[in-house]
Parts: sequence; C-alpha cells; structure tokens
Amino acid sequence: MTTTVSTGSSGSSVSPVSLDSPPSVPNAWDSDPKRLAWMVGSPPPPEKVVCFADGSMRQFPQSRWAYSHMRALVPTKTVARGAAGVALPRADRDDLDAVSFRPIGSEVPMTWAQSMAANYTDGILVLHRGRVVDERYFGVLDADRPHIAFSVTKSFVCTIAACLVHEGRLDDQAPVSQYVPELSPSAFGQATVRQLMDMTTGLQYSEVYTDPKAEIWDYARAGNILPRPATYQGPKSFYEYLVTVKRQGTHGEQFAYKTVNTDALGWIIQRVTGQSLAENLSQRIWRHLGVEHDAYLSVDTTGTEFAGGGLNTTLRDLARFGEMMRNHGEADGRQLIPKAVVDDIRGGADPVKFKPAGYLTLPGWSYRNMWWVSHNAHGAYMARGVHGQALYIDPTAEMVIARYASHPIAGNMGIDPHSLPAYHAMALHLMHHR
Amino acid sequence: MTTTVSTGSSGSSVSPVSLDSPPSVPNAWDSDPKRLAWMVGSPPPPEKVVCFADGSMRQFPQSRWAYSHMRALVPTKTVARGAAGVALPRADRDDLDAVSFRPIGSEVPMTWAQSMAANYTDGILVLHRGRVVDERYFGVLDADRPHIAFSVTKSFVCTIAACLVHEGRLDDQAPVSQYVPELSPSAFGQATVRQLMDMTTGLQYSEVYTDPKAEIWDYARAGNILPRPATYQGPKSFYEYLVTVKRQGTHGEQFAYKTVNTDALGWIIQRVTGQSLAENLSQRIWRHLGVEHDAYLSVDTTGTEFAGGGLNTTLRDLARFGEMMRNHGEADGRQLIPKAVVDDIRGGADPVKFKPAGYLTLPGWSYRNMWWVSHNAHGAYMARGVHGQALYIDPTAEMVIARYASHPIAGNMGIDPHSLPAYHAMALHLMHHR
Repeated sequence: MTTTVSTGSSGSSVSPVSLDSPPSVPNAWDSDPKRLAWMVGSPPPPEKVVCFADGSMRQFPQSRWAYSHMRALVPTKTVARGAAGVALPRADRDDLDAVSFRPIGSEVPMTWAQSMAANYTDGILVLHRGRVVDERYFGVLDADRPHIAFSVTKSFVCTIAACLVHEGRLDDQAPVSQYVPELSPSAFGQATVRQLMDMTTGLQYSEVYTDPKAEIWDYARAGNILPRPATYQGPKSFYEYLVTVKRQGTHGEQFAYKTVNTDALGWIIQRVTGQSLAENLSQRIWRHLGVEHDAYLSVDTTGTEFAGGGLNTTLRDLARFGEMMRNHGEADGRQLIPKAVVDDIRGGADPVKFKPAGYLTLPGWSYRNMWWVSHNAHGAYMARGVHGQALYIDPTAEMVIARYASHPIAGNMGIDPHSLPAYHAMALHLMHHR
Repeated sequence: MTTTVSTGSSGSSVSPVSLDSPPSVPNAWDSDPKRLAWMVGSPPPPEKVVCFADGSMRQFPQSRWAYSHMRALVPTKTVARGAAGVALPRADRDDLDAVSFRPIGSEVPMTWAQSMAANYTDGILVLHRGRVVDERYFGVLDADRPHIAFSVTKSFVCTIAACLVHEGRLDDQAPVSQYVPELSPSAFGQATVRQLMDMTTGLQYSEVYTDPKAEIWDYARAGNILPRPATYQGPKSFYEYLVTVKRQGTHGEQFAYKTVNTDALGWIIQRVTGQSLAENLSQRIWRHLGVEHDAYLSVDTTGTEFAGGGLNTTLRDLARFGEMMRNHGEADGRQLIPKAVVDDIRGGADPVKFKPAGYLTLPGWSYRNMWWVSHNAHGAYMARGVHGQALYIDPTAEMVIARYASHPIAGNMGIDPHSLPAYHAMALHLMHHR
C-alpha cells in the first residue's frame, strides 16, 4: 500500500512520499554501514572514503557511517561532562521484541523488533521508571560513540532559553532586535523572542529538502555544513546568513518549522549569557546529568555552534536528558531545569496554529519551546531530528525512548509511521505487563 | 647578546636564529591570546576570527588561541579515556618561582617564574615523586582544555611501535615494504622499521620551516593541515604523499629529523594491529592511565590520523603519561608499557649518529624510539614538539615536567635556551630542598 503524505520536518509544504520502503533505496541491511565497510583499511579504498569536501558525508548510504563520526569530518566544540558518570540502572527485559503495533497507513501489524530495520535504527534505548529495559545498537554505533542529534538540538537550545525566561534574564515578549540589533533589518527584527521559541515567525525560508533551490541549502553552505563551490560568494557564517532572511507572512499567526529560528535564538542566548551554547549546555545540564561522555556541537568557520542541528551525544546520555525532563527537571537530587519550564513544555502550544503546517502523522500536535507535543492521552512529547533522531517522553507510562537513526529520507514521514505507534504500544505494554 | 644557532626541529640545516626575543615579534604579554580576545563575541569581529581556511590558525599570534582549540578548527578523532580519572596527588610548593638558572648562551641568570613568559608558556606542570609541586596556566589554556602536542605525538606513536616489537608482532629489522607494500617504490621501501623508529632514514624531505619550498609544506597540504589553493592538484592524504618520498643519502647512517618517518610508522602500526592509532593509544594507554579527559588526534580527509603531530591532550593527562614512563611503564599497579621498552628508550641511541644533525642546544643527545635522550648525569629524556611542547622525564630527580606553549618560532632554538637549563635546575632544587 502506498499513501502520499507530507515530509516530516519541512513545514507547510506537502510533498509526496511513499509509506513503503523508499523506491530504489537500499534497505537497512543492504545499507548497513559496517557491512559496507566505509572508512575501513589504512587507507580505505577511494570508493569507501566518506568526507566533507565531496559531500559524501551527507549522501545515503555513506550517511549511515557519517552520522556516528561527525567529529572526524567537521570542526566541533566540546560540551563538557561532569567528573564522573552515573551508570543507568538496568532492568533488561526479553518480552519486548514481540510488542506489536499497526504502522500509520498500514493494515499489517509490525513488531518492535521489525521496526528496528524499518526505521534504519542506529541505536534505541528504552527507560521505564528510570531503568533500562531495552538497549540495542546497529551499524557502526555503540554505547560510547556520539551520534548526530540533528534537530533534537533545538529542544536542548530552547530549553536553555526557556530557563533564561523563567529566571527573568530574557523577556520572551521583547522583539528579537532588542537582544541582537544586527537582526533589526531582517525578518527576525520585529518578531518576538516567543515567536522564535514556538516557531510562529513569518519567514521567506524553505526547508523542503527535496527542492534544490530551497533556502536550507544556502544556509547549509553559509554554516559550512555543505562544501562551498570554488566560486562561492555567499554568506560565510550562520549569522551572516541570518541577517539576510526576509519576511513572508505575519509573525505569530501559525507554526512553520524553520531551522533559522533556532540559530537566531542561539544568537540571543549567547548575547544574554555572554557564553557559548556549549558552555551554557555544559554548565546548566551536561555537568550535572551523570552523563558518561562529553557531547559536542559542530561549528561554522567563525566558531559559532549549529544551534539548529549540531549536537552529538551518546544514546545513553540522550536518554539521561529525557529522564531528567520526565522527572520534572530533576536529576540526581538537583533541579537542573525549573519544574515550571518542564510543565510549560508539556502543556504545549495551540494545536490550531500547528495544523496548517500539514503534518499528517502528527494530528492534534503542537510545538512549544522547540519540543513537539502530542496532546495524546499520555501527554507524550518529543524532541525530533531529521533522518530519525528522537527523544520521546511519555509521563503517564513513566517511559523515555531515545533513538538515533540514519534513515535515507530527510523528513520524518519515512520514520513516523513505524515509530510513533511503536512508542505508544511500548508505553502501554510497559504499563500493563510488569 | 645574540648568538646564531640551528633551529630545533629542522634536522641538519643550520639556520640563524637569535637567542634574544625574536625581532619584531610580540612578547608573551603583547601576544596574550586572552588579552587579544580572539574568537570572543557572537560573532567575533572579522579581524578576531581564527580559522583554518585562511591559514590564520597557523599564524602567530592567532596560533596562541588555536593551539588550545584545535578541534574547533579541524576534524578530529577521539582517543577515549577510561571510566574515571584519578586525581593527581598534590604537594604544591611556593619556593619554586625563585629557582634560578643560566639560559643557554646567556650570562644573565633567569628565574623559573621569568622563564614562563620567555617561553610563551600556555601551561606547565611539575610532578615530583608523583605529586604536583607546580601547575600554572597562561593565555587561554586551563586544566580541562586539550592543547596540541605537535611532535610529542611521535613519542606516543613510537612507544606503541616499540611495544609491538617487544611482543614480536613487529620486526624492527624487516624492511618497511614488508608491512606496507605501497611504500615499496618510495624511499621508505628499503628502509628498516628500526631506521624509521630512530629516524636514520635517508630521505629527500626538508623540514626547514623558514624555507617556503621545504617539503614539509607540501606534506601539510596533502594532510589537510594547511588549506589547499583552489587549483591544488597534489597528494590528497598523508599516505598519498608518503609514497612519493624519494631517497637522499643512505639509510642508517645518521639521524635526520623528518616527520614523514612517523606517519610511515603509523601506517605500519595500523597494518599490524588492524586498528587506528586512536584505538591503539586508547586501548594500550589512555584507558588505563587514570586520565581526566579524552585525548584526540587530528585527521586528514581520508580519516588518517596525523601520527607526526596531531595529538591533543590536557596538560595533566600529558604529565600522567610522563609519570607512567618514569615508573618504568607502570600506572595504578598495571604494566602498560613493558619495562624493557622504557629501558630501551632511556638508554637512547648512538650520539655519534645524532651529532651531524647540528642541534647546538642538544650536545651529546640521541634519538631513540622517537624520544630525545639527553645522556646527562640524570638520564633525562624528552618528548618534544614544535612551538614549545615538551614532556621532560628526569629519573634521578624523580621529576616529570609537562609543558604546552605557543612560541612564535617553529623551532626549538627559541625555547630550549630558557627551558632545558630551567628543567635541570628544577630537578636539582627538588632533589636538594625537600
């Protein structure tokens, strides 16, 4: 069966994507990065080299290796951990493989075990009541290797911003230009900080990955995410790009997912705190979370971190962040994020403003403080990143799921159908089978 | 007073360098990277940006910032630490500032405190009997920030190789081509592994940094250490360069310091072990040394680590490595490096083969397993890196000194005169004033 739906993270554009395996794309087994032996050998054979300069790191299936090796491909900045990690308590279970669910748009049930390959999963970890009940790695990922979180980064960044608002250091009703005067002439100038945080700005900026003329590609070249042609004359940093963004539509009217909002917010955070995003994340969260590893952020050629998608963490450390959110902002007896900030995120924003964005897999959802809020019966909410990165928190089921993936499609429609129902099924299973 | 001497790391060429402050180069205070505020601000002002693409990261005084921020400038690979660091025991002393010595080529005594600025020191740590008696940071370095070790890397890499020889996995009398057939047509092909390890190969390769036509610059462009011109058509990796190196002179006759030897040795290590240098270093040493931080290695565009100079560590972790060597290869009750390997390094090579290289500050020294051996009364030996990186081990005084620096001159003649005598004076002071 084939259904056409919108791509996951490309905002209001509705482009047709098949729910079945993408046409002419290798499946999880055929694209397995360990089997394909990228970058193996001294030196690797030329056809097995994955690198930045020729764009191969962004191409599937090379991406399946690259997403677990970002620091070997691009410059990065450390998000420092604290002195010692705290091991996650374990309660591994052997009854989870068979957990069954019906993928969105399909009549054929699928099991939890089957969903791993369907989602091109690199790693998945399920916490129930704070204990590891399931943890699996595929391809080249392992427990000690950071993986790119892509737009999951946004939820980290905006949680920092929400804390600053809570503390009175940042006024979310103030115009962006109050904090970053350089943005005054751009579309961001007249937007409020709150409109950035909930992505209700009106911007002439397309994130439709299937359109080679979409502004996201210019943005990627500016931020040194993609290689630049020899003749490149465009903006040379994230900030140089941001000041060029033009208005389209009215600020505050509806949700429209555009990565530039997060980098503008990152700019504000740096101005308000006088510290880099890496320092902010480290000092407020990472040092106190009991993580096992430093995280890191990719940077552009002026040293600015990619707030919209540059974070890399291990899977366990991502799960620790989710568990802290589930525990109302508390970790190891210490309140890292004010409970009011977590409650505000969980409460979500107005689903009416979200609906026009046309996410067929996210009916009734909203976007608040750069978290995706389901408004379902369990009050589940998520951080989501392109190519299948996810942090799913189900407060009712006392469950947190962290997943890293390298799905071939740059949009969540390839992956939501086999993951969102799987998460809810897992939640119900854990609640009712102890 | 001005004396002309050879540059420190440029092998047999003797080029004139003043012992006084280099002409028209800012001193340590005027070049202080914190004061000059490189990369401060969001974004930093254009004239304060330090980056790879325009070569500024390799230029003094920007280098004083860059050497403490390499991973934000270039792609890197992690050398993973173990689960938990072990704090260095402390016995800080306040009588060390006044320790006095006579710089080489000078009649005017200098104090330990004065030598800090003279050497453009970024950080220095002295261990006596395993305890920290002195630890200082300058510029932008701090206890938790990795600094580039440059050629100190070579001593790490060759210590690994020496272990493999000790274990019978690598035959140091075999020709290089036995392990890396690709090197057969090059000058390396007929050299023995031992000749690489002691750098007695005869290679047409100049490392005179003051000569813009020296092969070191071609090598740097091949390894992505320096940016490539748009029209660049040369080798695109370390290995592609190594196979082009031609013979000059006779293998085995005399010591000649040439970085390419280490990268050829790194290639051998990877072939013999089937693991990257980062994995080798991590599994044999870094995981068991009680280090506080991951180290990292810079990589070329094919993912090959820069064996000749790409290691970055914190100062304390470098000191831990030195202390392990001082303790005959043992750390925390575990034998990481066989005692025989450490003894072999301490014993040095033949000073007669070293002498023709013309190092005026290193009379009677030798080079063994890529360590610099003083053959002085204390049996001191060193790992040394360009721009002032040093790990100095004095077995008699039970002293280890780790130093990171960002000296403007790419040669040790700027820094040996105010550091080698200082280290020996410190050793005598610690022995006789407890």
